[in-house]
Amino acid sequence: MSPANRQVRLAARPSGLPKDSDWELHEATVPEPGSGEFVVAISHLSLDPAMRGWMNAGASYIDPVEVGDVMRAGAVGRVSASEHPGFAVGEHVYGVFGVQEHALSDGKGVFKIDPSLAPAPTYLGTLGMTGLTAYFGLLDVAKVKHGETVVVSGAAGAVGSVVGQIAKIKGARAVGIAGGAEKCRWLVEELGFDAAIDYKSDDVRKALREHAPKGIDVYFDNVGGELLDIALTRLARGARIVICGAVSQYNATEAVRGPSNYLSLLVFRATMTGMVVFDYADRFGEAMAAIAGWMREGRIISREHIVDGGVEAFGDSLLKLFAGENTGKLVLRVG
Amino acid sequence: MSPANRQVRLAARPSGLPKDSDWELHEATVPEPGSGEFVVAISHLSLDPAMRGWMNAGASYIDPVEVGDVMRAGAVGRVSASEHPGFAVGEHVYGVFGVQEHALSDGKGVFKIDPSLAPAPTYLGTLGMTGLTAYFGLLDVAKVKHGETVVVSGAAGAVGSVVGQIAKIKGARAVGIAGGAEKCRWLVEELGFDAAIDYKSDDVRKALREHAPKGIDVYFDNVGGELLDIALTRLARGARIVICGAVSQYNATEAVRGPSNYLSLLVFRATMTGMVVFDYADRFGEAMAAIAGWMREGRIISREHIVDGGVEAFGDSLLKLFAGENTGKLVLRVG
Repeated sequence: MSPANRQVRLAARPSGLPKDSDWELHEATVPEPGSGEFVVAISHLSLDPAMRGWMNAGASYIDPVEVGDVMRAGAVGRVSASEHPGFAVGEHVYGVFGVQEHALSDGKGVFKIDPSLAPAPTYLGTLGMTGLTAYFGLLDVAKVKHGETVVVSGAAGAVGSVVGQIAKIKGARAVGIAGGAEKCRWLVEELGFDAAIDYKSDDVRKALREHAPKGIDVYFDNVGGELLDIALTRLARGARIVICGAVSQYNATEAVRGPSNYLSLLVFRATMTGMVVFDYADRFGEAMAAIAGWMREGRIISREHIVDGGVEAFGDSLLKLFAGENTGKLVLRVG
Repeated sequence: MSPANRQVRLAARPSGLPKDSDWELHEATVPEPGSGEFVVAISHLSLDPAMRGWMNAGASYIDPVEVGDVMRAGAVGRVSASEHPGFAVGEHVYGVFGVQEHALSDGKGVFKIDPSLAPAPTYLGTLGMTGLTAYFGLLDVAKVKHGETVVVSGAAGAVGSVVGQIAKIKGARAVGIAGGAEKCRWLVEELGFDAAIDYKSDDVRKALREHAPKGIDVYFDNVGGELLDIALTRLARGARIVICGAVSQYNATEAVRGPSNYLSLLVFRATMTGMVVFDYADRFGEAMAAIAGWMREGRIISREHIVDGGVEAFGDSLLKLFAGENTGKLVLRVG
């Protein structure tokens, strides 16, 4: 009997928050590599708010996951079998391997990682797509400058926590918006943010007046919704808003809430720009080297929020993102 | 008895469309110039959708008009008395002289105009702020390139009609969205737009698929509302949206309709930027010279929609803008 490869497949397109019945736990067999292929034994899966968008039908920046397909996910693991000249058994790799225990790959989009430099899950977060998103969003899209004020929503999340730290490295003032006193404490006391606003208990409008008194130069938005509308009223002249995501809206069953205050873009001569990290693929090396350097110097602290339970815990674990239960990068340990 | 200077003052801040009772017709006396001042006999007043915003309390890109003050308006006229060394009696000038028959000025923000080159009302439109808005919005904010597709809303208005014509001059495809078959005919047959979409009778979504088959590279927005939301679904990769105005929203008594489809900015890696023409004041000369040159060559056709009736017709005339009754620049003849 072949060894089992448990997979989570999309069983139905969800309406609102994904439910158990939207997933199917499938038992496949571990694949055998053909010529030019290798197999990865996955150790950790990346859980991302963007996954919710991939579950919807229709055109977006990436094709939707089809019903019946293994759910798309970034993952790290070790090569367990190889007929590929570039990947040897035992090597550690990152790739979009999907929610399963074993993945077959031809090497496209796969990076080797070095777990002696940083734990494997860090390559799903600060040294992975979310850290790269923070890097390119803040430096290339927003073009943050010394002395400016950066406000980031979802600040205790995988992207937001790195945005604030890079902002500080670049000489900017970093203000985070997060849900809960403990997350806010972590941002200020451990990560070095200048201030943190607890949207669950603070008056955000008032807090922004206090913590961004000269206005917001860069608003890095992971959340959308009401926070974006409030931020739009507190921009500085020439502000740049980076639209990275809108976790408050991904499970909306009615229309997405558009920013009613978008005419503030005119009042403040501001810009709102959407970004997708994959566009910067040819510069991932440069960015990873920079982030790794800052981590070595202790200027960026990486935090992974690791959940156990294997692939069968995927559906429940994903919901943590939408409930705001994670601090740092949410990762599911597999196998 | 001193000669009368009839003025329209803001009597109350309107809710929704301005009503008669929001205006007060006041009879002042014609001012006498002091040292360094001059008096202008106003011939034509500029009517602009932006005026509605100036009537609201609160911070914006410009101070609100206070209740009791003469309503702000751009105007052209002739110097009728002068104690200013730079402005002689008989000279034709443009300035923000307000809704009145005679204005006192110290020359700040006043330009001399030459009515032998173009009729005075043209300096309120194509050779004035609206033409300059089209110029800087399309060339500096959107940075339109040869071969791109420009879609402009409010295309038969003072700004939109010039946007499309400059787009053509720059080798772009120009598609206008306007209300009514006659406006659409004018855009295509007289101004040389490649296509026009009648939002009152066409299926705009379908028409954009037909007339901007490769997507919208530049969306120049004067209207906001549903048209903006539809345009967001039809962007090309790297599109630039210029937020110039939102005439559909200025009289909203409930919240402004924000663009629900703003996450298309992410999907299409697009940018939405607000602009205010006054920021380009130091380059007005360059732009006016360029536009005047294109007019001489017959490449830009200027159209003014002139209403008679004097200052007392101001309130009713302004409503034409919000009813979409004007084609080209709406101007009120005074005196």
